[in-house]
Amino acid sequence: MASRIFNFNPGPAALPLPVLEEAREEFIDFKGSGMSVMEISHRSALFEDILNDAVARIKRLLALGDNFKVLFLQGGASTQFAMVPMNLIPPGASADYINTGTWATKAIKEAEILQKPHKVIASSKDRDFKYIPKTFQVTEGAAYLHITSNNTIKGTQWQSFPDAGDVPLVSDMSSDILSRAFDPRPFGLIYAGAQKNLGPAGVTLVIIRDDMLARVPNDIPTMFRYTTHAEKNSLYNTPPCFAIYMVQLVLKWLEDTVGGLAAIEKANKEKAALLYGVIDQSGFYQGTADVDSRSLMNVTFRLPNEDLEKKFVAEAQKQGLGGLKGHRSVGGCRASLYNAVGMDAVQALVDFMREFEKKNG
Amino acid sequence: MASRIFNFNPGPAALPLPVLEEAREEFIDFKGSGMSVMEISHRSALFEDILNDAVARIKRLLALGDNFKVLFLQGGASTQFAMVPMNLIPPGASADYINTGTWATKAIKEAEILQKPHKVIASSKDRDFKYIPKTFQVTEGAAYLHITSNNTIKGTQWQSFPDAGDVPLVSDMSSDILSRAFDPRPFGLIYAGAQKNLGPAGVTLVIIRDDMLARVPNDIPTMFRYTTHAEKNSLYNTPPCFAIYMVQLVLKWLEDTVGGLAAIEKANKEKAALLYGVIDQSGFYQGTADVDSRSLMNVTFRLPNEDLEKKFVAEAQKQGLGGLKGHRSVGGCRASLYNAVGMDAVQALVDFMREFEKKNG
Repeated sequence: MASRIFNFNPGPAALPLPVLEEAREEFIDFKGSGMSVMEISHRSALFEDILNDAVARIKRLLALGDNFKVLFLQGGASTQFAMVPMNLIPPGASADYINTGTWATKAIKEAEILQKPHKVIASSKDRDFKYIPKTFQVTEGAAYLHITSNNTIKGTQWQSFPDAGDVPLVSDMSSDILSRAFDPRPFGLIYAGAQKNLGPAGVTLVIIRDDMLARVPNDIPTMFRYTTHAEKNSLYNTPPCFAIYMVQLVLKWLEDTVGGLAAIEKANKEKAALLYGVIDQSGFYQGTADVDSRSLMNVTFRLPNEDLEKKFVAEAQKQGLGGLKGHRSVGGCRASLYNAVGMDAVQALVDFMREFEKKNG
Repeated sequence: MASRIFNFNPGPAALPLPVLEEAREEFIDFKGSGMSVMEISHRSALFEDILNDAVARIKRLLALGDNFKVLFLQGGASTQFAMVPMNLIPPGASADYINTGTWATKAIKEAEILQKPHKVIASSKDRDFKYIPKTFQVTEGAAYLHITSNNTIKGTQWQSFPDAGDVPLVSDMSSDILSRAFDPRPFGLIYAGAQKNLGPAGVTLVIIRDDMLARVPNDIPTMFRYTTHAEKNSLYNTPPCFAIYMVQLVLKWLEDTVGGLAAIEKANKEKAALLYGVIDQSGFYQGTADVDSRSLMNVTFRLPNEDLEKKFVAEAQKQGLGGLKGHRSVGGCRASLYNAVGMDAVQALVDFMREFEKKNG
């Protein structure tokens, strides 16, 4: 009998238990094929059904128009940091970026390495990335405006997306994709490493609009061109089949069992409200992000001192509450409340927090 | 009860059944962590143990010296086609390539797109890539000599590696890595998509020598530099954890159960000898590769006509022998005999072939 913990890992993160159970059930003999899903051809009808179902579910869940292509690539958001400027800044153009932390900084760095013209039009570095900038001027005619929708390390999140007029939005949504509904139409490109809300590490979701595909130059390596993958339905080369299969199961769970984005958004808001409520009522726990910029996905907080933080993480672990240590670059504590983390987990966490405060406060 | 077929797929391909069973056993609760291996942090001791064990086993199995680094990347061999010239052709230098088929042609194409000086010093295109070139002159001072050690589509394989003197060899070994022993010292870089002999699709093994790492320029995107991954033990960003875990289990099986490269090479030679023997004794089946260039991994053959080939593949499938269709670009039949394909599978195949010939010959 498998015993499971409450998993607050920041990514790779918790997966829905019914998804894991379904995958285990057919692990060695996938749909009567006599093969594991890892052993079937990526050009077989069996695999194309998985891929096409995953694409169709993404389109339905996000209400994407026919002018969007859904791709499954490799290399994580870190590879997209480079592919975005390589593909989407035409000669003579320049892109806008907003810097909200470590990941945005890395994205900007790649534009710099590539010597692609770009401008950082806003940054929250002045206050250690504790907030999402509210005032900025999007450059007229910019190739795109790049934002990081949710910032795992500092626990901030765009509450609503900026109005960039005619400038297409490009967003790293690795840590909050499919956690809430939004209007996809202003987005030229969305990318997301799977390992938070979508599935296991090893596959990157890319959603790209047709007018962005039209910009892709021919003088960059084949694998780094979005057109290569769009023209071949992500089957130009062997894709990460098993990771895509797991994503498909997660999407099926989200759409058919949970009930889609409205339902998961409601659940995510309730989970975050419960945890932030306990933090705000306490003089012991201290939230680190500005209240109006708080993330529904990654709740970051401090205890009165580092010794208590260590003790907190260790005792929580002993009680079956895992992954509560803050990012190694900032310390403190962090609870990641992705889609697969249930209210039961958050309830167990706040019960533990109240108890810990009583004993150590 | 799972029923399994004999799987001759060219990749993604058969995995060892004990490996699949072990992965299934701990799929939901990995080593008592209360999490799936897909849900644990890539920076946890649990995952680092997997990664370091995989690296150590590759080093032992291939007898790699301390001057080699073992990396697990993403994007398949197709991404390496570009990364190799981006990283390893310094300004003013030029690389040699030998063209033995589709994959080598694609590798050459990326050097061309990147406008990196290169020279194709030999090709077997004159006879439809049915053989491995035997006479060629390696350019003195070339940055490297690139070869494709095994050619899945045409069923050819380098029987022994070319002597390039001081010029480092670079080889795409996607389809025969760890199938036989060889001297790794002349190789500057070896790359291999995992989905034939190593594990599932979604991870690429790269073995790189220190003097090649020293060549890597700083003006290419971070994720495309070998140094980025070498300096961080493949943990610069979130790696494809589950795929690496599966590779580690396959390596453990190869080293501890099979007995290493000498044992698997012996088995692979026996399997191929049995199948080629049946083909050669028959006037019905016709091998397509020159005898002295034949692959131990991919046995390609034709039947008297295409209708019979279709019938052969369909009847084999019905009898539990899967994946025997030739590559869509060439037609015919192909049996891939990777490490995880047992002698029992090959025996079943030749029994079927003899029977089919009797009925249709």
